[in-house]
Amino acid sequence: MSEAAYEALRPETVAERLGHVQAITQRTGDPSSWQIQEVGDGNLNLVFIVTGDRGQVIVKQALPYVRLVGESWPLPLKRAFFEYHALIRQAARAPGSVPEVFYYDEGQALVVMEFLTDHVILRQSLMQGQTHDGLGRFLGEFCARTLFRGSDLHMPTAERKRDLALFSENIELCDITENLVFSDPYFDVEMNRHTPALDPIVTMLRADRDLKVAAQHLKAAFANNAETLLHGDLHTGSVMVHGDQARVIDPEFATYGPMGFDIGMLIANFLMAYCAQPGHLANVEARRNYQDWILQTVAELWSGFSAEFSHLWRTERQGILYQSTLFEAQGDELGSEQARLDRLAAIWRDTLGFCGVEMHRRTLGLAHIAEFDQITDETLRARCEARGLMLGRALVIGRNNIIDMATVTELTRHINEKDYL
Amino acid sequence: MSEAAYEALRPETVAERLGHVQAITQRTGDPSSWQIQEVGDGNLNLVFIVTGDRGQVIVKQALPYVRLVGESWPLPLKRAFFEYHALIRQAARAPGSVPEVFYYDEGQALVVMEFLTDHVILRQSLMQGQTHDGLGRFLGEFCARTLFRGSDLHMPTAERKRDLALFSENIELCDITENLVFSDPYFDVEMNRHTPALDPIVTMLRADRDLKVAAQHLKAAFANNAETLLHGDLHTGSVMVHGDQARVIDPEFATYGPMGFDIGMLIANFLMAYCAQPGHLANVEARRNYQDWILQTVAELWSGFSAEFSHLWRTERQGILYQSTLFEAQGDELGSEQARLDRLAAIWRDTLGFCGVEMHRRTLGLAHIAEFDQITDETLRARCEARGLMLGRALVIGRNNIIDMATVTELTRHINEKDYL
Repeated sequence: MSEAAYEALRPETVAERLGHVQAITQRTGDPSSWQIQEVGDGNLNLVFIVTGDRGQVIVKQALPYVRLVGESWPLPLKRAFFEYHALIRQAARAPGSVPEVFYYDEGQALVVMEFLTDHVILRQSLMQGQTHDGLGRFLGEFCARTLFRGSDLHMPTAERKRDLALFSENIELCDITENLVFSDPYFDVEMNRHTPALDPIVTMLRADRDLKVAAQHLKAAFANNAETLLHGDLHTGSVMVHGDQARVIDPEFATYGPMGFDIGMLIANFLMAYCAQPGHLANVEARRNYQDWILQTVAELWSGFSAEFSHLWRTERQGILYQSTLFEAQGDELGSEQARLDRLAAIWRDTLGFCGVEMHRRTLGLAHIAEFDQITDETLRARCEARGLMLGRALVIGRNNIIDMATVTELTRHINEKDYL
Repeated sequence: MSEAAYEALRPETVAERLGHVQAITQRTGDPSSWQIQEVGDGNLNLVFIVTGDRGQVIVKQALPYVRLVGESWPLPLKRAFFEYHALIRQAARAPGSVPEVFYYDEGQALVVMEFLTDHVILRQSLMQGQTHDGLGRFLGEFCARTLFRGSDLHMPTAERKRDLALFSENIELCDITENLVFSDPYFDVEMNRHTPALDPIVTMLRADRDLKVAAQHLKAAFANNAETLLHGDLHTGSVMVHGDQARVIDPEFATYGPMGFDIGMLIANFLMAYCAQPGHLANVEARRNYQDWILQTVAELWSGFSAEFSHLWRTERQGILYQSTLFEAQGDELGSEQARLDRLAAIWRDTLGFCGVEMHRRTLGLAHIAEFDQITDETLRARCEARGLMLGRALVIGRNNIIDMATVTELTRHINEKDYL
């Protein structure tokens, strides 16, 4: 641990300040060989690629404010602490799915980790029409493993309660989610923005009582239902891909919450990528094929989650919930299966709800997605965004009655053949 | 704060060890006048009445083990810390409803508080056929005020999250609830006991898959759904009464959990008192009248809760959930009413479920209730207990379909006319 006061790194100070750390130089070689590149394009942090004669690492350092907005929006450095603690838990729960951490300095709010040489952000790849074999299954299994193994289904409950206390201090980042995802999109807040042509739909959604009530129920579930340690910001900008390889990054929003939140946010970002394709792939045939691949990935994501969750339920259910002493040990294996189906159905309903609100906030709120933003033809952009908004509304309101993923994908296709403007 | 190592008080050491505390002697007068009476009849603690020439106080000190079981079951002294923190929160949230705290010593795990001179434990009063005007309303309002004001409906969320972290350390007492209420009653555990004549019913309930699955869903809600700060052990042994006066005591099991837990446990203990009356009031007319009063009290408890919760929803909903900015401020007051009804319905369903499991564990598990235990005629006792078990099962399984309290009271009367042995 560094004893010095926090100081933001600059490319020219990286070698001087981190060159003494053996855990880093082991990977990079001597600091005199380092080349430093600042690549932070996210909303919150400094990110440097350090290239030495033996290899590369990523240095990620929190800034004391929201980079996207500026120093007027302060944000605690402690989010690096939560990112570090989430990363090491995810690495243990879903080995190989997150970058390896080499070094962590709490005082400097920085994490040094594995550089994923040829990987790109999934969101970029989705705009370029790239496919990735096995991606849905990888993401589904990542969700199942991290969400199951971070819950009272698996962990010793004393350990889970200590973790709950630790992550309950991630107040400011939870606050961002609570406001930006669940509330701000549904009324007129200064930081909101949307494509002007969407005005009539935005007015309609903000007057939609059932939708607003449902969004608030989902917010209550997010804020109170501490089922498991979430990634907390699991969109397609938090996934890196290279061919059939993938890793999940950036868990600084980690908090205890309901399992469906991570899965729903992830699916929402795929569905929005689907809606945005008319702005990226002009060729109708190529676009249809690519959209089919997106929906297939979404289906594999849920089936991968469901299969792995069920596998873990049957093999690693050693926590305080649904104990095998009450079921299998009493010769009632079907009792535990019945409970498993109930739980999966509840996660499914949550997933659809969280998916819907994520689709709204990415078009109506502060933080938008590149897939829509990069469509320069405003009319086309609004048409694509409108479909996402309509689909989101249908998922939130229908979450208790949409029975399976085939229904979701059929609805997605149907809505994307319509024009709501 | 005392710096000395923890030492259990004895009647002869109370004056010597606490006589210097002005906050106590202000109430009692000079310690040379003190008379000490040890009255702890609970399961866990030492309790002394200190009587001086100016007044009386209660000294409650945690023991490092479960008094009911002995030193073989150690229990952390820190529960006095949680009791103290819960008491001062309850006093602020529902003024006048709990004993006033005069002094707290964390190291000695002791709380000195107001002595309720003429009050008796409600459970004793229920065995003696005493009625108490306004009791249901008092308890319903206590629940509404403490549960609403300890939740994200009312508190600043940063403060609620800090409280969540603080009470998440109450691990061992939560563990008792999680095991003794939700799991142990449903299979054969050494510490369990039940009246032998109940054997056929016990076998049936422990083979009842739907019941066991439902009890585990309720356990998951208790363990994970951190809606608000619960009393955590709100049965009729945690309420003191004197005429139409009442106070709630003993919140050492305080933890964040779902609102329905406190309300359900309380109602369960009234319904069991109803079932036990044939063992206490021989006169049929007097018994019927008293049972009517119990059901009326249960009805007033729920209606008192519901009315006060609704009042607070409309006047003190200043937390992050269901913000008025989204509803009233948009001219959509009915949106907030719709959400309120949804929340009340969810609390109602939880209440019925928790009520049912409490009725089971008090007859099948480790900790029984005096109303049943003191029925010396084993056949009569078993007949009364059987009705409680059947009613509990009906409430757990029917919790999503029992529409109102009139249905519960009618079902209670119906079941208590039957003989299940």
